Amino acid sequence: MPNILFAAGPRMWETYRSPLKTALDAAGIAHDLRTDFAPDQVDYIVYAPSSTLQDFRPYTRTKAVLNLWAGVEGIVGNDTLTQPLARMVDHGLRQGMTEWVTGQVLRHHLDIDYFLARQSGDWAPKVPPLAQDRPVALLGLGELGQACAGALGAIGFPLRGWSRNPKSLPGIETFHGPRGLTECLSQAATVVLLLPLTPSTENLLNATTLAALPAGAVIVNPGRGGLIDDAALLAALDAGRITHATLDVFRQEPLPADHPYWANPRVTVTPHIASETRPDTASQVIAENIVRAEAGQPLLHRVDREQGY
Amino acid sequence: MPNILFAAGPRMWETYRSPLKTALDAAGIAHDLRTDFAPDQVDYIVYAPSSTLQDFRPYTRTKAVLNLWAGVEGIVGNDTLTQPLARMVDHGLRQGMTEWVTGQVLRHHLDIDYFLARQSGDWAPKVPPLAQDRPVALLGLGELGQACAGALGAIGFPLRGWSRNPKSLPGIETFHGPRGLTECLSQAATVVLLLPLTPSTENLLNATTLAALPAGAVIVNPGRGGLIDDAALLAALDAGRITHATLDVFRQEPLPADHPYWANPRVTVTPHIASETRPDTASQVIAENIVRAEAGQPLLHRVDREQGY
Repeated sequence: MPNILFAAGPRMWETYRSPLKTALDAAGIAHDLRTDFAPDQVDYIVYAPSSTLQDFRPYTRTKAVLNLWAGVEGIVGNDTLTQPLARMVDHGLRQGMTEWVTGQVLRHHLDIDYFLARQSGDWAPKVPPLAQDRPVALLGLGELGQACAGALGAIGFPLRGWSRNPKSLPGIETFHGPRGLTECLSQAATVVLLLPLTPSTENLLNATTLAALPAGAVIVNPGRGGLIDDAALLAALDAGRITHATLDVFRQEPLPADHPYWANPRVTVTPHIASETRPDTASQVIAENIVRAEAGQPLLHRVDREQGY
Repeated sequence: MPNILFAAGPRMWETYRSPLKTALDAAGIAHDLRTDFAPDQVDYIVYAPSSTLQDFRPYTRTKAVLNLWAGVEGIVGNDTLTQPLARMVDHGLRQGMTEWVTGQVLRHHLDIDYFLARQSGDWAPKVPPLAQDRPVALLGLGELGQACAGALGAIGFPLRGWSRNPKSLPGIETFHGPRGLTECLSQAATVVLLLPLTPSTENLLNATTLAALPAGAVIVNPGRGGLIDDAALLAALDAGRITHATLDVFRQEPLPADHPYWANPRVTVTPHIASETRPDTASQVIAENIVRAEAGQPLLHRVDREQGY
C-alpha cells in the first residue's frame, strides 16, 4: 500500500483531499494519503512548488514526484530532486486553456473592446475582417499549443507555429529555431505564447523579435511571464507597433498594483486564470501515474531535466 | 445576354459594381449590369430592401430577384413581387456570423468584461467553469444556426437547438414548437437568436419564455430585433434574472441614442455588424444563381413566400 505525501500547502489540501481520494479509489489503489510522513516512508509526492518541501534528499524510497501544475520551472532546478518528476497535463487545464485562448483571440479579432467603449449611444459600425485573413502564430507546439491550434483552426484562422525543434503538424505551417521564429512572426496578426520557461525561452519576445511582427499585431500570453521582455513590450506598445497585449502571467504574481502594465490602455491584465488545474481531472491524472509506476510502466508527462520541461 | 438591374442604392453600387462584374465574368455570363433599365427589359434584379424599387409589376420578364441580404422581411410581404426571390446565403456572411457568435459566447463564458473592469490594479482571480458545463441554446437551426453550432460544439459547449418544425441534427439536442421552446430554454446558460423575423417569431423571447431560462442566463441576438420583446427583456435584466444581453439588431437602426439599451450596464449594443454580406463572396453567390436560372435549374436559397423566409 503506497504512502502518498501531499506537499502543496493547506489550501490546496482542502481542495484536493477529496478528489484525490476519489480518483485513487476509482483506480483501485489502496493507499495512505497524508500531509506528513517520515520522509523515508514516502512512495509518491503530490507536489506544488509553493510547498515547504524543498529538500528531496531524505525521500529515499520515493518513486515519483507528481507536480500539480503544468509549469515546472519552480522545481526543475532543484538539485536535491533526483526522483522522476512528472508535469501535470490535465484535460481540464488543457480545455480551459483552449477556451481562454480562443476567447481572447476572438475578442481581439472582433475588436469587442471597441464596441464596449461605445455604449453611450455611439452607433459606429465597423465590420471585422474574416479569420481567414488573420493568421495566428502559436509559439510552443506542445499539448496546450496543439489544443489551441485545433480550436483556432476550426474557426478559420490560418495557423503558424514555432517550436525549438522541428515539428510537423497537420494544418499548421511550422517553423523552428531562431531564424524560424522571425519568419513565423513576420506574418502573424496575433501571437499566442504557450512555451515553457527555460533559459533558452526567457525573453524570447524581446525588442528584436517584436520588431519582426507586422504593425498592428496583438500579443496573448497565457504561458509564462518570463517569456516576454517587459520593457521591450511596453516600448513597442507605446510606439503603437503592437496594438494590444493580453497578459495572464507575470514575473511577479500578483502583478504589483504600480506595475505599468495595469495602467497601460493597450494592455489587459488577467490574474493567472487561463490555465487552472481542475482538481477532479488532475486527480485522475495523478492516480493514473501512480498505477503506471506501481506496474513498472513509464510515467506520463515525465520531465526531461536537460530540456527543462 | 441577360440584363441585370442593380437596385440597392448608390453606396451599395459603389461597393458591388466591381466584385459583381468580376464574379459574373468568372462565371462566364456575358451580361449588361446597370442601375437603370426599362423595367420590361430586366432579366435579373440584384436587390436590397432599402432600394427605391418597390413596385415589381412592370418587371414582366424578370426571372429572379436576388436579395443581397439574408433577411427578407423587408420584401417578402411586398404583394407586387411575384417573381422568384432568393435570400443571400453568403459564405463570408455565414463565416463572419460564426466568428461573431463564437466570440460573444466565449466573452460571456469567460466573463472577459469582469477582468476588463479590473484594470486599475485589482488582481481578482476567478476561474471560469468549462464550456462542457455551459449549454448554449440556438434558436433557429438554418444555415447560420448550424454553422454556429459547429463552431460552439467544437469548443465543447453542449448544444440545444430549437426550430419551428422538427429537425434532427448531429451533436444538437433539438426541440420544436411552443412547448419545445420552453424545454430548450430551461437548461441554457446562453441563448443565441438566429431566427428569421416572421409573424410567428415576432416577440418569441417575451416575459413568458424569458421566465423559462435558468437564473443567470445570457442572451446574444445577432438575428433580428423584433424577435425580442424589449420591455420584457429590460424587466428581466433589471430583476437580475438575465445577467447580460448582447444585441446586434434592433427594431429601429441605428438604435436611438436615448434607447434604454444603451445606458443599461447589463446590455451590450453592437451596431449590426455580426452578419455583413461580403461583396466578393456574395457576388459569387449571385453569379451562381444567374447561371442556374439561365440553365433552367432551381434557384439556390429560394424564399418560400408562405413560410416568410
